Amino acid sequence: MPHIALAEGVPGIRGPMMLRPETARPMNELVDVLLRGPHTLSPGERELIGAYVSARNDCAYCQAIHGAVAAHHLDGNEELVRSVKQDFEHAGISGKLKALLAIAAKVRESGKSVTPEDVDRARQEGATDFEIHDTVLIAAMFCMCSRYVDGLATWAPENPDFYRQRAARIAAEGYTAVTAGITYSATTSAA
Amino acid sequence: MPHIALAEGVPGIRGPMMLRPETARPMNELVDVLLRGPHTLSPGERELIGAYVSARNDCAYCQAIHGAVAAHHLDGNEELVRSVKQDFEHAGISGKLKALLAIAAKVRESGKSVTPEDVDRARQEGATDFEIHDTVLIAAMFCMCSRYVDGLATWAPENPDFYRQRAARIAAEGYTAVTAGITYSATTSAA
Repeated sequence: MPHIALAEGVPGIRGPMMLRPETARPMNELVDVLLRGPHTLSPGERELIGAYVSARNDCAYCQAIHGAVAAHHLDGNEELVRSVKQDFEHAGISGKLKALLAIAAKVRESGKSVTPEDVDRARQEGATDFEIHDTVLIAAMFCMCSRYVDGLATWAPENPDFYRQRAARIAAEGYTAVTAGITYSATTSAA
Repeated sequence: MPHIALAEGVPGIRGPMMLRPETARPMNELVDVLLRGPHTLSPGERELIGAYVSARNDCAYCQAIHGAVAAHHLDGNEELVRSVKQDFEHAGISGKLKALLAIAAKVRESGKSVTPEDVDRARQEGATDFEIHDTVLIAAMFCMCSRYVDGLATWAPENPDFYRQRAARIAAEGYTAVTAGITYSATTSAA
């Protein structure tokens, strides 16, 4: 049961976002810029960073939804998402993305854990300052989101199909657009 | 030295924010809503929560600037800010704020650390669902900011007067307004 009164049947971050649209709006804008905005990393790669950090944060909702969005962008390759969450160093991804995930893993622990060697490795794999910057901020943002979702003890559906369907809509419309209709969605999804 | 190329002489979060104004804008809007928007907790109380979480995160820049903004709002009482950072349970603050800081401390560790007992204590001290929600999100947001600032190894000035002067400007104008002029500020403060 959530720690505070949230709309029934509204999963994960969407419950508190309904309660406080003033904070939901800039949060979703930040998510959209980082995960869907113009970039040299694909949306699938950026969602993988988010799904990985959420998994390490043990946040059921965040890792399920962002894992599903990542898979959606990656031709439905759910096995790849699983392998990144479990052991990204041996997953079927680029050396650059592995090096960026290693930075994200450090950021998750603490910003101070990131070493010049971590950053050198990413540069040697071809990462730009822009990509390193955004990796740090994506990992940091997911440390906010996990704490928001779990700190209020929100509800996470268990059925993977819920996340697959939601992911398709997010991939098509974006986070801001999907949450702009949050009241309507809540009314219908609570049924 | 920062891990990526940032404008010289621009301290803390402002360096990466200059590099990426697209993410700076929603981040500052979120900070403004949470710390300065209409609320039943005073700006000083909300800044204290941020300064406390930043101190526990060992983020030199965040704890210095938000400690200074808190003190600015609290009649310049820097001793109170220090006592909250060190041991809020024995600081000269309300029972409600102590209970909210206890929740913030748990959120900092992990969202899952927050217990129904933590929330009950806050309610018994008079906290509303809105205040509990915002405390969780403020703590979570500062876990993002600390990781952003330290994950890129940004520069933090040591002179307390820097933070006092900056705090006065933030208190008067807000985070969004101060950062909107970020390029100009950088040019002048780098001198």
